[in-house]
Amino acid sequence: MSHTVDSAVSAVRTYIEQHRAVFLDDLTEWLRIPSVSAQPEHTPDVRRSADWLAAALRETGFPTAEVWPTPGAPAVFAEWPSDDPEAPTVLVYGHHDVQPAAREDGWDSEPFEPVVRGNRLYARGAADDKGQVFFHTLGVRAHLAATGRTAPAVHLKLLVEGEEESGSPHFRALVEERADRLTADAVIVSDTGMWSEDTPTVCTGMRGLAECEIRLHGPDQDIHSGSFGGAVPNPATAAARLVAALHDEHARVTVPGFYDGIVELTEQERALFAELPFDEQEWLRTAKSHATHGEAGHTTLERIWARPTAEVNGIGGGYQGPGSKTIIPSSATVKLSFRLVAGQDPDHIEKVVRDWAARQVPAGIRQEITFSAATRPCLTPLDHPALQSVVRAMAIAFEKPVLFTREGGSGPAADLQEVLGAPVLFLGISVPSDGWHAPNEKVELDLLLKGVETTAHLWGDLADTWRHAP
Amino acid sequence: MSHTVDSAVSAVRTYIEQHRAVFLDDLTEWLRIPSVSAQPEHTPDVRRSADWLAAALRETGFPTAEVWPTPGAPAVFAEWPSDDPEAPTVLVYGHHDVQPAAREDGWDSEPFEPVVRGNRLYARGAADDKGQVFFHTLGVRAHLAATGRTAPAVHLKLLVEGEEESGSPHFRALVEERADRLTADAVIVSDTGMWSEDTPTVCTGMRGLAECEIRLHGPDQDIHSGSFGGAVPNPATAAARLVAALHDEHARVTVPGFYDGIVELTEQERALFAELPFDEQEWLRTAKSHATHGEAGHTTLERIWARPTAEVNGIGGGYQGPGSKTIIPSSATVKLSFRLVAGQDPDHIEKVVRDWAARQVPAGIRQEITFSAATRPCLTPLDHPALQSVVRAMAIAFEKPVLFTREGGSGPAADLQEVLGAPVLFLGISVPSDGWHAPNEKVELDLLLKGVETTAHLWGDLADTWRHAP
Repeated sequence: MSHTVDSAVSAVRTYIEQHRAVFLDDLTEWLRIPSVSAQPEHTPDVRRSADWLAAALRETGFPTAEVWPTPGAPAVFAEWPSDDPEAPTVLVYGHHDVQPAAREDGWDSEPFEPVVRGNRLYARGAADDKGQVFFHTLGVRAHLAATGRTAPAVHLKLLVEGEEESGSPHFRALVEERADRLTADAVIVSDTGMWSEDTPTVCTGMRGLAECEIRLHGPDQDIHSGSFGGAVPNPATAAARLVAALHDEHARVTVPGFYDGIVELTEQERALFAELPFDEQEWLRTAKSHATHGEAGHTTLERIWARPTAEVNGIGGGYQGPGSKTIIPSSATVKLSFRLVAGQDPDHIEKVVRDWAARQVPAGIRQEITFSAATRPCLTPLDHPALQSVVRAMAIAFEKPVLFTREGGSGPAADLQEVLGAPVLFLGISVPSDGWHAPNEKVELDLLLKGVETTAHLWGDLADTWRHAP
Repeated sequence: MSHTVDSAVSAVRTYIEQHRAVFLDDLTEWLRIPSVSAQPEHTPDVRRSADWLAAALRETGFPTAEVWPTPGAPAVFAEWPSDDPEAPTVLVYGHHDVQPAAREDGWDSEPFEPVVRGNRLYARGAADDKGQVFFHTLGVRAHLAATGRTAPAVHLKLLVEGEEESGSPHFRALVEERADRLTADAVIVSDTGMWSEDTPTVCTGMRGLAECEIRLHGPDQDIHSGSFGGAVPNPATAAARLVAALHDEHARVTVPGFYDGIVELTEQERALFAELPFDEQEWLRTAKSHATHGEAGHTTLERIWARPTAEVNGIGGGYQGPGSKTIIPSSATVKLSFRLVAGQDPDHIEKVVRDWAARQVPAGIRQEITFSAATRPCLTPLDHPALQSVVRAMAIAFEKPVLFTREGGSGPAADLQEVLGAPVLFLGISVPSDGWHAPNEKVELDLLLKGVETTAHLWGDLADTWRHAP
């Protein structure tokens, strides 16, 4: 570490040390607002949370901090232009709404009365996502203090939505509508986590999601399996055969064209994934599963992060009550979801799945297939300059090499990538034990302050990187 | 037709003509009793129906007519010994309980207020099964009158149960317990039908039934398909693959040993089935199905009557509500039923299905399989002397050649065959339009009297046949 970097590190740490108490007091105040977007009785609280955050961002120094209404819960937008007009624009994404929580669900303390025990702050939203939004406030202040600036090295924007825990129903429309205000060269999502306390990581992408329901109609009503069994097609059998045909003996998806255009893992990524201290038995316990199973030629981490899937989320047809009923059911339904990886286009997936499914229908069975709105995958390559900036900033804060993960789930980050045309980077300091959506959600205070420290270094590094980009 | 036969035919017809009005009045009185075994409020009516029948049988001349209690609804047993001690014993089976019925279900008249419109008697139970039980009363009287006998040519027994429409839960135990009273050389089941008004047929057998439920357990709870999808086994997929593996591309059941020992159709039976005026399009309308599908190399009639099946009666797992839920389900369940044909042993089927199913379980999935009580198949060969007697008697009554059918469903007749060790013959005069279990159930009066006429000739023929049997 050079002397300059060294002194910058010291300056940032000193600033954070001096301001951590106020920072935590403020965060605690915010966490007291039960901004549960899923529960109508908390609608005023979600609005109060947005107002509180906008005020806190103005207090932090953002010249602009607005509450943006949506047909649902409001979002908060803030902007702090750089004094360098050539500086890149960075948009930070997070959310201010939280999951429902009640003491009787198994909390050791009131979920909306934050409490510090040991080095942990317990409250609903502590990690998901108020803590991770809020570290950006102290982060930008530390950045200014350590560098002597009066404005950030990047044009800094924040978009903090209020409906993420309710499936972000109005997010895409909001982003499209406000695209001119949201333009950015890079998006930083602070709503994920890292591998563990000891292993800082940066997430480089999320899988996308396409979902469909396939309904198979046989006889016009349930019919007697004695009178007709063995002589007419059974839609439950047809549903089963369709599902069984989805994968080959290597657990690869058989739908022709399904893997078209996918961005394969590089050898470097595979090697870096393999460096993670992954305990498969421990992972199986988390998955509450009794064996691993997946696409041949890939490790478990590759399968959940970097390979597309076809999973049955539900199947049903005929009699499902106690005992038996000797019928040939009139219909059967299969709900399928496809996790998509970079390079896969949901429209293409819908087309190839429809084509494939249409070929799985036996004579006498009528098929209906309905796709719901899809989420695109997103991925930022390891060598992307902005990603390298995040890695460097984290490495300074954590004093450790930074490894890489991806996220198997799907989220609204993909909307930002798609609408704004900007790469999405993930800066999250939460760890698996933080208990997202569970009782006793907490955030590790040390890690929270590492998040502050990371952003304090990130904006300068990103501005430099952009200046030197080819 | 010889002169002797001719005069016997005339004598029987004359007797029936003279007594049909009283016969129909009596049947009408019985049909007024709403002996619905499935509805507890009708428990007294089912008991009243049994008492009424026992009295009517005594009135007919049966020296013995008893109401046999069961833990559920009572059965009626009657016996009329032949005056020839060498005569064979015939046990007639039927039931006196009926399906539920209410005017508002779509009946044109009150279901328990019998009414004659045209040549049809409308009432719940008219065809299923009171009409078909009751033709045996006038039948045996006509037999005596036409032959000048004072006792039937065979030892005649009747067993009329009261829980058939409720699945005969106590029938097997009753038959086992009373086996010494029920011994018979042949069983005549009058609870089926014939091909059509124009095509008299005798049913030669019923399929058996084995049923199981297979439960497949994956993760200990539903898990997130984004976080874990593609890397652990999905029990809904396992259920689908198991069902898909049940049949090969010729729609034959793949379970090794499934077809062991089955009595194949003879060329004669296939030829006789082919003589039936079968309209496949009309049959599809009855089956409410849109195509035929089944075991290669067999016609539809062969498939439903003489070939074993494996059908999915129900399948379920994961999310089945509206919209989507991106989970890997914790478990999935499949309900299977196997229709069995003569030569297939339910115990063997259970064993081979268990063996097969155990081999369909992927790593990480736990399988539970439960079989419920099975019903055996029954079949009487075309050349069986007693069957030939039924055919001759029917041919006299209907003045037409008699063809053969089988029944694809399964019933308590198999218990009689198994416990009593006697061949089971089916003498039914109902036709498909009679509307069993449906509104406006009716019986064709002409056919009902042909049933009377058939039994009037049957007992003498059977006694002769037995006397000359090798």
